[in-house]
Amino acid sequence: MENNKITSQEDSFARWYQDVVREAGLAEHSAVRGFMIIKPYGYAIWERIQKLLDRRIKKTGAQNAYFPLLIPQSYIEKEKEHVAGFSPELAVVTHAGGKKLDEPYVIRPTSETMIDSVFAKWVKSYRDLPMIVNQWANVVRWEMRTRLFLRSSEFLWQEGHTCHATEKEALQKTQEMLDLYKDFSENILAIPVITGTKSDSEKFAGALTTLTTEGLMPDGKALQLGTSHMFGQKFAKEFGIQFLNREGKQEYVWQTSWGTSTRVIGGIIMAHGDDKGLVLPPKIAPYQVVIVTIGPGDNIQQAARRLSREIKENGIRSHIDDRDERPGVKFYEWEKKGVPVRLEIGEREIEENQFILTRRDTGEKKEASAENISDTIKDLLNQIQSNLLERQRQRLVKDVRDVLEYNDFQEAIKQNKFARGSWCGSEGCEAKAKAETKATIRAIIGQSDEPCMLCGAPGKHQVIAGKSY
Amino acid sequence: MENNKITSQEDSFARWYQDVVREAGLAEHSAVRGFMIIKPYGYAIWERIQKLLDRRIKKTGAQNAYFPLLIPQSYIEKEKEHVAGFSPELAVVTHAGGKKLDEPYVIRPTSETMIDSVFAKWVKSYRDLPMIVNQWANVVRWEMRTRLFLRSSEFLWQEGHTCHATEKEALQKTQEMLDLYKDFSENILAIPVITGTKSDSEKFAGALTTLTTEGLMPDGKALQLGTSHMFGQKFAKEFGIQFLNREGKQEYVWQTSWGTSTRVIGGIIMAHGDDKGLVLPPKIAPYQVVIVTIGPGDNIQQAARRLSREIKENGIRSHIDDRDERPGVKFYEWEKKGVPVRLEIGEREIEENQFILTRRDTGEKKEASAENISDTIKDLLNQIQSNLLERQRQRLVKDVRDVLEYNDFQEAIKQNKFARGSWCGSEGCEAKAKAETKATIRAIIGQSDEPCMLCGAPGKHQVIAGKSY
Repeated sequence: MENNKITSQEDSFARWYQDVVREAGLAEHSAVRGFMIIKPYGYAIWERIQKLLDRRIKKTGAQNAYFPLLIPQSYIEKEKEHVAGFSPELAVVTHAGGKKLDEPYVIRPTSETMIDSVFAKWVKSYRDLPMIVNQWANVVRWEMRTRLFLRSSEFLWQEGHTCHATEKEALQKTQEMLDLYKDFSENILAIPVITGTKSDSEKFAGALTTLTTEGLMPDGKALQLGTSHMFGQKFAKEFGIQFLNREGKQEYVWQTSWGTSTRVIGGIIMAHGDDKGLVLPPKIAPYQVVIVTIGPGDNIQQAARRLSREIKENGIRSHIDDRDERPGVKFYEWEKKGVPVRLEIGEREIEENQFILTRRDTGEKKEASAENISDTIKDLLNQIQSNLLERQRQRLVKDVRDVLEYNDFQEAIKQNKFARGSWCGSEGCEAKAKAETKATIRAIIGQSDEPCMLCGAPGKHQVIAGKSY
Repeated sequence: MENNKITSQEDSFARWYQDVVREAGLAEHSAVRGFMIIKPYGYAIWERIQKLLDRRIKKTGAQNAYFPLLIPQSYIEKEKEHVAGFSPELAVVTHAGGKKLDEPYVIRPTSETMIDSVFAKWVKSYRDLPMIVNQWANVVRWEMRTRLFLRSSEFLWQEGHTCHATEKEALQKTQEMLDLYKDFSENILAIPVITGTKSDSEKFAGALTTLTTEGLMPDGKALQLGTSHMFGQKFAKEFGIQFLNREGKQEYVWQTSWGTSTRVIGGIIMAHGDDKGLVLPPKIAPYQVVIVTIGPGDNIQQAARRLSREIKENGIRSHIDDRDERPGVKFYEWEKKGVPVRLEIGEREIEENQFILTRRDTGEKKEASAENISDTIKDLLNQIQSNLLERQRQRLVKDVRDVLEYNDFQEAIKQNKFARGSWCGSEGCEAKAKAETKATIRAIIGQSDEPCMLCGAPGKHQVIAGKSY
């Protein structure tokens, strides 16, 4: 028999996480090492994310397209930093159609090289620019130590790829997409993020700069939620992506790419979950309200269905649980699954024309009149959405410590907090701190003249440092 | 320079098809042999198909989920007919993470074996049934001779997989999904289909029976659009998918699977297209109306934008082409892309408060008052949707010939028509006809006592035969 209890966060955050993923029915490991199965409830959350994010991405002028799963090995090898970064993680197809292939193909770990080889044909003139293409796809990066959603050998994501006529425009696009991910994290996922630039050791393999949105999780580890990369003309030169400018001269394009993945579901679980299980922000909850029938009887079932229809017509996603089970069993189930609002309906409620609403985030109960019930629920959903974000903001105030020197830095990291302070910019200094504390620079957030919090040398950047997933 | 002309259908249907795919900007070949790039306009059609089909599939009780891209070779080999059918088409991953794998993985050509290995864990009791899971994914089947959308080594599809407590229920599900695909083909894609059962030589590898929806294309080749398979308990026994029935006994489940793919885009192109290019059914057209500005001037651009806003608010998908190009160039472009309705707007139209609407399917023009323009367009879109289906229905009346004997059969196939008649059910007889005419049994549509149209032996089935993609 499976254990259907959820370990408390205090006992072990890592075990708590696994338990919630299992008990909420989000995902499980498959027989293929490191490859996960996204179960229906987990996938329904991904569908909500896709729908809301896709709409925003399209508003920036992007068009969706689809590029091959397999990439010739020679493409990946064109850009030397790119291949160095990705080659340890590649899955290689050597045989197909019953024969050994002349050139092996790799399963895309990311599609810069494939898409750039196509852009080289598509881009001819300044009139073709900017070119903004997005792809929703699966990618494979072979991982030894995997965790559901957070780190897996296959994951689902969107990857946008762009070409621009000028460096300035490409830089603006990199920033625009970072802002989009920040807005999405905060206003949809209710996860406040730190935004900034990656240090050289942490940037995307092949990028000039990587901008990142980092969610700081309650266990003291940062989770990269969305990233936006500036490539300059590096790949354009390798793949020959040139355009005829207004003066009739050939120029190389300036490029960006940006993406976010099923990993954000891991962020949602960790940011909002509690010892009872998952807590979903209303905007991405597959069901915003669960209508739980109390006691048997056709009368109650019919009333539940009428009510469900009414609130659905008002744009609220609802689900009826009229199973012949004790109310406590049903409550427990939907608490684990993190449904934002529970509505109880039994003989008494029907008689009094009043329902009991329970918030998942705070556990608060309130009576609500059947009249205007949709408006009442909508208000409550808005309050829950705001409260989740606000709660995380307040946590961050406590979890991010301003640090001046290395002793304080070590202490902050040891206590599973994040350190904000000055950094000299040296890779050696970052590597030493990492070896000693497991913490790295998560994001460069500004400039600084203060001495480096890690080594005391003259500082250069204001940074957030911490452990990470 | 690329040739941007479209070959006439009469000169060469195959070249016409390639030209339309290229000129409408739907897809192109990639550097990876047999793998296609679905371009933004082609992908937008796929997104429409996904949206409308997904809604219908969910209404049947299916939940979406996601299963691993890679499948252990040993899984594929469990069911002997399944592996015999798919092994010539497998792409095999032998190395990953810098090492040779102990057991090779194949890229999913279809997911029965992977999903069944999971169902074996998920299904425990009759209370878990029916289990109805659908996946939107990419699959790989290595092909030597490929055609964009119609036959490619990678394609996108949905695959549904179900488990039922009884044979009867599984048979009902197989039929239900066939009906769904038929309805979708006819009422959304405007492609009338023949439905029936596949002969043993053409059924899905490992299925007991395969039901099919076949679109009969104007070049005399049938295109399989959606298929629905009954597996009985074959895979359940191989993978050990058992449930405790109401009497407390272990039983094997009864299973089905069903799918449709990006191939249907090829069907749309062939069924409706003409010598000017693509003709899209309004329900799946990314843009239902293109507003083409005639002449320069802010006034015209502003009026176009106002109009576009108005019709968008009324639920019509529109696009403005206000490029500084001659009207003829713009008309030609959108004709190639198959936009159902063109609306012209220039100084005269603004002054007279009248627009010229042109139907892509018939070329008919009409003047329409600016008042109630959305209603006028909606009516027109409905007429176009119906007309496309009706036109195909009428073509089928001419293209399907009732055939009594082999001479007539050969003649029908030679003239690129389809033959309807009696078949004795012998595989040898089907194989002989295929060798001589390239035609096969596309679907068994009923019973028959007439002599076999292929060999004259006593007949058994009423069938549709023809060449195929």
